Amino acid sequence: MKLTRQAIKDVILIEPAVHGDERGYFFESFRKDKLEDTLGHEVSFTQDNESLSSRGVLRGLHYQLPPYAQSKLVRVISGEVIDVAVDIRLGSPTFGQHVKARLSGENKHQLFVPRGFAHGFIVLSEQAIFAYKVDNGYAPEHDCGIHFNDAALGIDWQLDNAEISTSGKDAEQPMLLTRQQTAPDTL
Amino acid sequence: MKLTRQAIKDVILIEPAVHGDERGYFFESFRKDKLEDTLGHEVSFTQDNESLSSRGVLRGLHYQLPPYAQSKLVRVISGEVIDVAVDIRLGSPTFGQHVKARLSGENKHQLFVPRGFAHGFIVLSEQAIFAYKVDNGYAPEHDCGIHFNDAALGIDWQLDNAEISTSGKDAEQPMLLTRQQTAPDTL
Ligand SMILES: Cc1cn([C@H]2C[C@H](O)[C@@H](COP(=O)(O)OP(=O)(O)O[C@H]3O[C@@H](C)[C@H](O)[C@@H](O)[C@H]3O)O2)c(=O)[nH]c1=O
Ligand SMILES: Cc1cn([C@H]2C[C@H](O)[C@@H](COP(=O)(O)OP(=O)(O)O[C@H]3O[C@@H](C)[C@H](O)[C@@H](O)[C@H]3O)O2)c(=O)[nH]c1=O
Repeated sequence: MKLTRQAIKDVILIEPAVHGDERGYFFESFRKDKLEDTLGHEVSFTQDNESLSSRGVLRGLHYQLPPYAQSKLVRVISGEVIDVAVDIRLGSPTFGQHVKARLSGENKHQLFVPRGFAHGFIVLSEQAIFAYKVDNGYAPEHDCGIHFNDAALGIDWQLDNAEISTSGKDAEQPMLLTRQQTAPDTL
Repeated sequence: MKLTRQAIKDVILIEPAVHGDERGYFFESFRKDKLEDTLGHEVSFTQDNESLSSRGVLRGLHYQLPPYAQSKLVRVISGEVIDVAVDIRLGSPTFGQHVKARLSGENKHQLFVPRGFAHGFIVLSEQAIFAYKVDNGYAPEHDCGIHFNDAALGIDWQLDNAEISTSGKDAEQPMLLTRQQTAPDTL
């Protein structure tokens, strides 16, 4: 298992080591000790989620405000997605910037998305099974979003707008700067 | 999410609640709080594993002796398996008995297998992706097994012997009573 800090250094890319044999394969998909070694602090995941989505589905960009903020460890079990983590930590030198990773059942890469980031992904394959851990519970009343096409973020989602489908909620998410002006000290 | 104690009451069957919509589905595949409520004690999972196996592959029966014993929370992401947990707790009124569950990507059922149990599964579908959590690290030198066909266990694996394939190691595992006579106070 290889863990590598990304351009925004609190985001970590994880590449598990896969053991193949005549039965199939085996790999360790999560090692709390190794993640904490790289992070330099503890992380206690308390919930796992799984979603299935068809090609063009974009889920995001989502985050929960403190005290409900969540770190996420995200991966793809089958299919392929572009995964995006946007730094929305007020005062961060990389505020508004993002890290992007291609996660697939093939490469088995994972992304650690810290608290203070908005997260989303788009499905490039016919279908994708997406799985992730969070270290804080779901708080529907504090479930916030940013519009995926916010020009200030400049995210290349790699599919044409006409191919992209979102939930009703995600089609109406505010822009990051709107959000920041509304709640400047809570991000 | 529904959690139900099984005939051997420390084994728990978990049935998540799946939310479907036009994008696909979403479900919470693990809730530490709900599992601990049902168990009546804490459980701290520190590692996740994933394996892929083809039809007829049988992995098991495996366990690690204390202080390396592992609780496991097991599930199937795609495909179908028969999952088996054998009570090997010395002095247990159900010693040698087992709980069996059909786990599939379809039903999304999970089984909580406590410490003191040997665990194994057989793949019924063309392929199956199996995923599980453990609450204690892998200790290869303390990785123990029982032969899946031990007559004293009487497990119906639902496929003919000719269709079953195992690792070399699992083909040579000892019978439970042999293991018990060898190390009577360590189980
Ligand atoms: C996130 C979540 C949703 N749900 C329910 C609410 C809805 O009925 C259904 C779908 O919820 P939605 O918010 O539309 O799912 P979604 O897949 O769009 O939301 C997810 O998107 C990812 C990009 C983020 O990283 C996640 O943190 C989460 O926000 O699942 C839970 O029960 N528990 C949860 O933890
Ligand atoms: C179990 C394990 C194996 N490995 C490596 C060792 C081998 O190179 C490869 C395959 O290991 P095996 O023991 O043959 O895999 P397996 O799939 O036969 O073993 C598993 O069977 C399940 C029924 C049990 O519940 C598990 O606890 C485990 O014993 O993976 C790890 O790196 N970490 C681990 O935690």
